[in-house]
Amino acid sequence: MMRSDCEAMDAADSLAHARKRFILPESTIYLDGNSLGALPASVPSRMQDVIAREWGDDLVRSWNVNGWMELPRRIGARIASLVGAGQDEIIVADSTSINLFKLAAAAVLRQAPRRVVLSERGNFPTDLYVLQGLEKLVGERMTLRLVERAEVLDALSSEVALVVLTHAHYKTGELYDMRGVTQAVHKNGALMLWDLSHSAGAMELFLDRDDIDLAIGCGYKYLNGGPGAPAFLYVASRHQECLRQPLSGWMGHAAPFEFVDRYAPAAGVAQYLCGTPAVLSMAALAEGVATFDGIAMSAVREKSKRLGDLFLRLVAERCGDGGFEIACPRNPEQRGSQIALRHPLGYEIVQGLIAQGVVGDFRAPDILRFGFGPLYTRYVDVWDAVDRLARVMADDTWRDGRFRIRAAVT
Amino acid sequence: MMRSDCEAMDAADSLAHARKRFILPESTIYLDGNSLGALPASVPSRMQDVIAREWGDDLVRSWNVNGWMELPRRIGARIASLVGAGQDEIIVADSTSINLFKLAAAAVLRQAPRRVVLSERGNFPTDLYVLQGLEKLVGERMTLRLVERAEVLDALSSEVALVVLTHAHYKTGELYDMRGVTQAVHKNGALMLWDLSHSAGAMELFLDRDDIDLAIGCGYKYLNGGPGAPAFLYVASRHQECLRQPLSGWMGHAAPFEFVDRYAPAAGVAQYLCGTPAVLSMAALAEGVATFDGIAMSAVREKSKRLGDLFLRLVAERCGDGGFEIACPRNPEQRGSQIALRHPLGYEIVQGLIAQGVVGDFRAPDILRFGFGPLYTRYVDVWDAVDRLARVMADDTWRDGRFRIRAAVT
Repeated sequence: MMRSDCEAMDAADSLAHARKRFILPESTIYLDGNSLGALPASVPSRMQDVIAREWGDDLVRSWNVNGWMELPRRIGARIASLVGAGQDEIIVADSTSINLFKLAAAAVLRQAPRRVVLSERGNFPTDLYVLQGLEKLVGERMTLRLVERAEVLDALSSEVALVVLTHAHYKTGELYDMRGVTQAVHKNGALMLWDLSHSAGAMELFLDRDDIDLAIGCGYKYLNGGPGAPAFLYVASRHQECLRQPLSGWMGHAAPFEFVDRYAPAAGVAQYLCGTPAVLSMAALAEGVATFDGIAMSAVREKSKRLGDLFLRLVAERCGDGGFEIACPRNPEQRGSQIALRHPLGYEIVQGLIAQGVVGDFRAPDILRFGFGPLYTRYVDVWDAVDRLARVMADDTWRDGRFRIRAAVT
Repeated sequence: MMRSDCEAMDAADSLAHARKRFILPESTIYLDGNSLGALPASVPSRMQDVIAREWGDDLVRSWNVNGWMELPRRIGARIASLVGAGQDEIIVADSTSINLFKLAAAAVLRQAPRRVVLSERGNFPTDLYVLQGLEKLVGERMTLRLVERAEVLDALSSEVALVVLTHAHYKTGELYDMRGVTQAVHKNGALMLWDLSHSAGAMELFLDRDDIDLAIGCGYKYLNGGPGAPAFLYVASRHQECLRQPLSGWMGHAAPFEFVDRYAPAAGVAQYLCGTPAVLSMAALAEGVATFDGIAMSAVREKSKRLGDLFLRLVAERCGDGGFEIACPRNPEQRGSQIALRHPLGYEIVQGLIAQGVVGDFRAPDILRFGFGPLYTRYVDVWDAVDRLARVMADDTWRDGRFRIRAAVT
């Protein structure tokens, strides 16, 4: 395979035009959109407007005249259209961690006397930490049980109140069968909560069709919402009135501006708001989500799979003797929008790649991750990245630890 | 008193130069900085930089090379210098509501078998709502007790674990004696948590000297951090290791990038972080806090008191027959940086003022609030505001409800 083959793939790519929706640095091949999505081209001017006109000129009136109050629902509705949810089932608020706390706590209270919350060892740490914090707080009413990935379904029992899993694993990119797992969990009488941080914006999702109960997800990865963007949460319509979340701030009140002493939850998904929304970060997230305007998620998924397959094929062709172990599924149907390689010198190799202008990332102890934002990653980017990876592997100088030293001082 | 007297006061004002640190709309007299602080002049260019260079060019590397990871501590340390706290006692994170949940939960767990959390009826609603949510979640281990403002100290008992009060009341601006109340609470063996949302940035505070245990506060009012800016929290050094907060996300972990399954709290105030910080909103807050550079909080407080006194004097001189009741303390030592008037047609009068370019706000059922940002509010602004208030009161047309109708359509 030649670079020109990749150029031909880009020329035939129905999503190629979407790259113009982003501002990307000239000399970088960016394969870390699974950590921080690239900058949408519309963000700088939109942010100037929200700052100068909305904040500076209209000041506090903007909550009404410029729709600040509506941002959590409006952006939520747009995200809903990307993940197969109803317009009134998603709201944007707080962080992924905080949103997990809200939904897991609501589910545990609801599911009593069941008290086991089941999750996977090696799940993204913040999910486990938040569940541990909740367990400590509610005492007798909850026990967190962590099992190996392969044992999750076997661990279902009549004690299980809630299962919390991440759809695409943050390290390996491995996907769960969302529909099948949810069915098994339901058969057991438990509720299912999916963390979509590494899948929303990267593939088709069918939250309603697949009968999902609860979900959370990240705004700053494939949704391109900017660093630390607000997160989203999904509560299926059928659960909205019977669950009650404990982070009951004034924005989730039925009538926040009546200033009464007694909390009364807002109807629907608005109950899941807590404090005042971070308007500036929300405004950027709205632009991030708008990069998907007019684009079918099926096309995004198709391209994502091809980019991953191409990466693996080129690694096999060009770095066959590099000592890499493939740490992600080879079958693209079972893989998120990233490739994961395992190598004992993973950290040094990632530093070597960065020195060559290729940005992937490293996850301890030995995983190299390369993520693809199908709206802006080109096939030639994959070619160039693997080309430089092959060069790094062919250059013996780094094996003596020079990169480790260089990394420590920069 | 004449307008020229106010001009003379502005000419003699040692803080007059600070107004240039803000961009304010030409034709508006903005007396609502207690709801949303004005736009710092440095925000537009700083935000362009954080967006174009840090996000757009440096991308994920910015967490290290551009100090994104340090923002919560760095801004926290700057706020600490404004409120009499140590550099390592304040961190910026999440919203005021979420931060209250963290600290109240930590205190309740710590103070067992004491289980009463005491607060004031009519406290800012989100504080009460969050405490109600916590109560529901922890069950037997907590009881929320609300009493009238005058009865708080009498309600102290050996059952009280924690007292939660707002230093400057959001409606009336009335101040508690922070030091005295805290001493009484301590004498009783309880912990004290102050909500500083309406006082931080408006006056001198002495958190360390006054032996405060815990505090929370808002970034978007007197700190000028922008709409929905991240909030801050204070934990006295002596409590940092013995308290444990339940919203234990990865950013509060001792080693977030080791990705281990078991939560271990970070040392010090960093434990109180939860999810990934909202960088764009934090960058604006940093500029808001920087508007206080080189300015003594004693001077801010002095001017704030004078602005309030002037407002009350002019209302008495110009609107004496308007039917207003003074709803804030007349003694400036007992008052925050706002004036509150009570009037049965308060909503209509506030709408009439807005039509005249004077922005205050209304809080149901009958309070008109006028807030002063001492860095940008001038004495002539107070003169002009009361002048227009007098005009509104003299104009009989609004009494037939026209303003209510006008407000409904605009």
